[in-house]
Amino acid sequence: MVDMDKLKPMANAIRMLSVDAVEAAKSGHPGLPMGAADIVTTLFVHHISVDPADPLWPNRDRFVLSAGHGSMLLYSLYHLLGYEDFTLDDLKNFRQLNSRTAGHPEYGHARGIETTTGPLGQGVATAVGMAIAERIMNAEYGDAIVNHRTFVLASDGDLMEGISHEAISLAGHLKLNKLIVIFDDNGISIDGPVSLSESGDVVKRFEAAGWAAERIDGHDPVEINAALARAAQSDKPTLIAARTIIGYGSPNKANSSGVHGSPLGSAEAAATRAALGWECEPFDVPEAIRDAWRIAGLRNSQAHKEWRQRYEAMDAEKRAEFDRRIRGDLPGEFAPAMAALREHLLLERPTMATRKASERVLNTVNSVVPETVGGSADLTGSNNTKTDHQSPITPGQFAGRYIHYGIREHGMAAAMNGMALSGGLIPYGGTFLTFSDYCRPAIRLSALMGTRVVYVMTHDSIGLGEDGPTHQPVEHLAALRAIPGLLVMRPADAVETAEAWEIAMEHKGPSLMALTRQNLPTLAPAGAAKNRSRRGAYKILETAAKPLATLFATGSEVEIAVEAATRLNGLDIPTEVVSVPCFELFEAADADYRAAVIGDAPVKVGIEAAIRQGWDALIGSDGIFIGMTGYGASGPYKALYEHFGITADRTIEAVRERLGR
Amino acid sequence: MVDMDKLKPMANAIRMLSVDAVEAAKSGHPGLPMGAADIVTTLFVHHISVDPADPLWPNRDRFVLSAGHGSMLLYSLYHLLGYEDFTLDDLKNFRQLNSRTAGHPEYGHARGIETTTGPLGQGVATAVGMAIAERIMNAEYGDAIVNHRTFVLASDGDLMEGISHEAISLAGHLKLNKLIVIFDDNGISIDGPVSLSESGDVVKRFEAAGWAAERIDGHDPVEINAALARAAQSDKPTLIAARTIIGYGSPNKANSSGVHGSPLGSAEAAATRAALGWECEPFDVPEAIRDAWRIAGLRNSQAHKEWRQRYEAMDAEKRAEFDRRIRGDLPGEFAPAMAALREHLLLERPTMATRKASERVLNTVNSVVPETVGGSADLTGSNNTKTDHQSPITPGQFAGRYIHYGIREHGMAAAMNGMALSGGLIPYGGTFLTFSDYCRPAIRLSALMGTRVVYVMTHDSIGLGEDGPTHQPVEHLAALRAIPGLLVMRPADAVETAEAWEIAMEHKGPSLMALTRQNLPTLAPAGAAKNRSRRGAYKILETAAKPLATLFATGSEVEIAVEAATRLNGLDIPTEVVSVPCFELFEAADADYRAAVIGDAPVKVGIEAAIRQGWDALIGSDGIFIGMTGYGASGPYKALYEHFGITADRTIEAVRERLGR
Repeated sequence: MVDMDKLKPMANAIRMLSVDAVEAAKSGHPGLPMGAADIVTTLFVHHISVDPADPLWPNRDRFVLSAGHGSMLLYSLYHLLGYEDFTLDDLKNFRQLNSRTAGHPEYGHARGIETTTGPLGQGVATAVGMAIAERIMNAEYGDAIVNHRTFVLASDGDLMEGISHEAISLAGHLKLNKLIVIFDDNGISIDGPVSLSESGDVVKRFEAAGWAAERIDGHDPVEINAALARAAQSDKPTLIAARTIIGYGSPNKANSSGVHGSPLGSAEAAATRAALGWECEPFDVPEAIRDAWRIAGLRNSQAHKEWRQRYEAMDAEKRAEFDRRIRGDLPGEFAPAMAALREHLLLERPTMATRKASERVLNTVNSVVPETVGGSADLTGSNNTKTDHQSPITPGQFAGRYIHYGIREHGMAAAMNGMALSGGLIPYGGTFLTFSDYCRPAIRLSALMGTRVVYVMTHDSIGLGEDGPTHQPVEHLAALRAIPGLLVMRPADAVETAEAWEIAMEHKGPSLMALTRQNLPTLAPAGAAKNRSRRGAYKILETAAKPLATLFATGSEVEIAVEAATRLNGLDIPTEVVSVPCFELFEAADADYRAAVIGDAPVKVGIEAAIRQGWDALIGSDGIFIGMTGYGASGPYKALYEHFGITADRTIEAVRERLGR
Repeated sequence: MVDMDKLKPMANAIRMLSVDAVEAAKSGHPGLPMGAADIVTTLFVHHISVDPADPLWPNRDRFVLSAGHGSMLLYSLYHLLGYEDFTLDDLKNFRQLNSRTAGHPEYGHARGIETTTGPLGQGVATAVGMAIAERIMNAEYGDAIVNHRTFVLASDGDLMEGISHEAISLAGHLKLNKLIVIFDDNGISIDGPVSLSESGDVVKRFEAAGWAAERIDGHDPVEINAALARAAQSDKPTLIAARTIIGYGSPNKANSSGVHGSPLGSAEAAATRAALGWECEPFDVPEAIRDAWRIAGLRNSQAHKEWRQRYEAMDAEKRAEFDRRIRGDLPGEFAPAMAALREHLLLERPTMATRKASERVLNTVNSVVPETVGGSADLTGSNNTKTDHQSPITPGQFAGRYIHYGIREHGMAAAMNGMALSGGLIPYGGTFLTFSDYCRPAIRLSALMGTRVVYVMTHDSIGLGEDGPTHQPVEHLAALRAIPGLLVMRPADAVETAEAWEIAMEHKGPSLMALTRQNLPTLAPAGAAKNRSRRGAYKILETAAKPLATLFATGSEVEIAVEAATRLNGLDIPTEVVSVPCFELFEAADADYRAAVIGDAPVKVGIEAAIRQGWDALIGSDGIFIGMTGYGASGPYKALYEHFGITADRTIEAVRERLGR
């Protein structure tokens, strides 16, 4: 079945195209593509189910190159298989500005790239999310429509990163048996032999996490094939630790760290050609080998056709729903349900923490949007992320909509990326805002890729009280607002919380909610115009007279601003309040609206229980800022607000001092 | 030897003091102290070598409560042992503002708290650094002076966090056999049973990482004692997985997640008293039990006294050096050596990447400061962190000054905290700046605790070129500057790099260097006044005429600013340049200096290949910013600078447009 004489030259085509592209770019990583070429050749010729003619076929197997630095492996492979976004010109433009073939695989640059990789460990953890998504969609749509596998090629670095632990223990726990990780075990890291820093037993480690695991020779297609066949039968996720030689084929550089991240150089590239018996010019591939790859690219067209028939035969309504979810459109019921909820909250005017308000909103969201999948990193009761509609998914049982992620913030965030990328699901997950630091690399990837993921981050300031400085976010709002493409929303009351969720669900990219532990009153006046948060900031308290002061605040501090303004107005100091639930949306608002909201009051004050960074854009560098300048403290939250001077009294004092009255 | 009748009531004293303090605070975590009381009682009565009369005795064993939420365990224990910073009043003020007994243990609040814990996983990983430090100091000073152990009490959450993987694999690799982690395996997490999210085999996991590991009954002092005795003989680090009952002693709440993070309530507290036969008032401890604890507190005074004799007997010079290092003072040779290096660089005027300049500087630093310990997360050749003086430490061999941390940025950062806390060492470690995200929780703890750790972060902008958006920091400078207490330094040339290192070494807190991959010219004029970076910003190019424009820039963009200013001056538009190597130091500079540097030129321009956030403090919200607004791209770096318009041309154009000339 496995024809070595056929596979070896096919693998060499990947090797040499990769070498040639790295030479042309004068930069890149030839070592991994050369080392792992036999693995992916066997995988794609005999096992994986993808159709290059339709790279987005919903039921395709997913392939994640977690070791993103080996991007030329992916590009060469896809080129040879016939993916149309990977032409020979694309290969020749490797690592050039505006090319589809970036230094690391970038999601969205070309169809076939399932996720952005490069930051190590992310691919493995994202793939866990893809594998979860597949099972959830399978539970919904059945084997006929959703039934595929997720393959990962990972490097030493991927498995040394902490996130890999979170990912593999979650995958093992859930028995994601359709997830197969192939470890390109080449024994070489950048500093030298991996043994400089690692002496663990990877097979035992994965077994301890509930995986099937074995070691094979990564240059022997027979062993690779047999291991992949065993993986297909496993009731657990599978690790295949494949011993390879980095830079395989290079006579003088193979098996050394020198071949990891630098071009071979023309002499060594020529020597490699000779050693592999590759008798053609750079970027050329002998016709027989091209043909073999083209045939490999056609292998699943029949399976795809049969899937298409089953898809066409679906109940029309069910199919329309499937299409809607894959497209990422929200159901028609969503907008009216949110409008009704908003009306209701405006009338009810609850006093509640925004984390609790978020739970209220999620009750509505989850009842009309069947594709949401909630979860928390072991803070379900604190993050208020679980609603009555949601039963948890459990090991091997995926007919549920809630995930107990465990204390794995980073793994959760990456898994949510994977779910969002996989299609048909909208994941949200909770932790404390201070622990956004633990999942920041994955949040950045959400933003870079534009995945619709909602981070529900509660306990968003010193307002959490006694848990103290380690748990009190101070710099996190600024640090998160710094991430391009992430909507950071800090609603002031239940109404704004509903608005924030509406925005997040509609946004084709990631959002992050910063929610309070402590209770807040409803501030929006009954009958307030609809979703005022959409433009990021709005006047929540206006004055008839031209204002002498404008107070800008977010979240829990809007209450303080409103109290201060009310009292200042009573002192004949006309004062307005602007609620700023989302800096990013306000920055994107049109200039006239921005100018009108910012206004020209002589005194501008920002109030946020966090650091000033970023606020000057609203209040100017001469504005007054009422907030934090350092870390918090452990104590009851009201005492902390007093202690740090984040109060209406202090605000009034500052405004009066500035105005001299 | 192990006297159950004695130990059980001693453990109950910890339980009840913890219950009482949580009741008084109406907030806190009673479950862990109640569950783990037997473990720490056996540990402190029979094994650990500390002296409450001198909590900072350099050769004490270290005890890290990684599960920081169980802080009352530590406070009760230290109170009972006789640590003077833990009075009964301190216990009664648990979780109150300005108390020493914060919600989570805060380093610096009281002697005896070895490190700040609460963010899960950090304690374990910090302890790995302490254990490394102990071995390095032992290699230097011998068994007579440095020879102690590091004990950790960890929870489920600590071991689920990804950082635990990095920490334990590093510890296993290095064979840190004096590190003992006791896992409080209570089977309960916040969401419910740990089995909701975890089904791994912890013993097998640790064995796979090269540890000795076993399971015991955490309520049986005989088993605890025997396991600790075995650990003392191990040639590997040891995990003791101790099965416990969370909230042990509470008749109705034990073994449930309800006892994890909330007070028992007065009725259940009373029921617990009764169940444990604890016949005294809240905060009271029967005299016999107090005495038993006091005696336990005296157990190591003889050992301490003997150590003191050995210490007094040390060679005077060696002892003075030991004292200096423990105090954290730099050697007298440091300042002159740095001054000489600076002079040399001013004359030589090298054109080199600041990462390479950093290596040059480290050659000087490491030759005069014997306590530096360098390392990199597998990017040694890229971070330029290793100098000729440094041989690596290897498994079981600690006579070295360099650590190959592996691809473990988070574990590295936490280990560096542990080394700095342990005393006598100044750790620095490298990775790419974009991967600061991977170690952010530990960087935050460096800043919160004020540990002298130097983060060497290279490849600090789109200037790294082809590796593309995942590797190009854009928001990281802002996000790091947001962390209170961290010095972020981005030197513009080799001279500023030397200045930055001088500042970092003298600073009693963490510093982070953002260094280029690409070459930069020396910009400082020969004969420039000494260490101009100390105040964070200074005029690097002045004009005779009153300036119409001031260009502020950092790092690699200072070159662009100087070119633009030179050309603008040639166009009769007087333009100054301010180099801003460190925002934090400039913010701390006196107001007059700040005002003089900022000046009052009508046009202010900030230039940094990163986002604008934070810059308004220098250039005002109406200033011009030449930088990034989103993610980078893959391509040669000069093409990227052109593409994103971070050039002298663009700067000149913007200034002229603003001035209308």
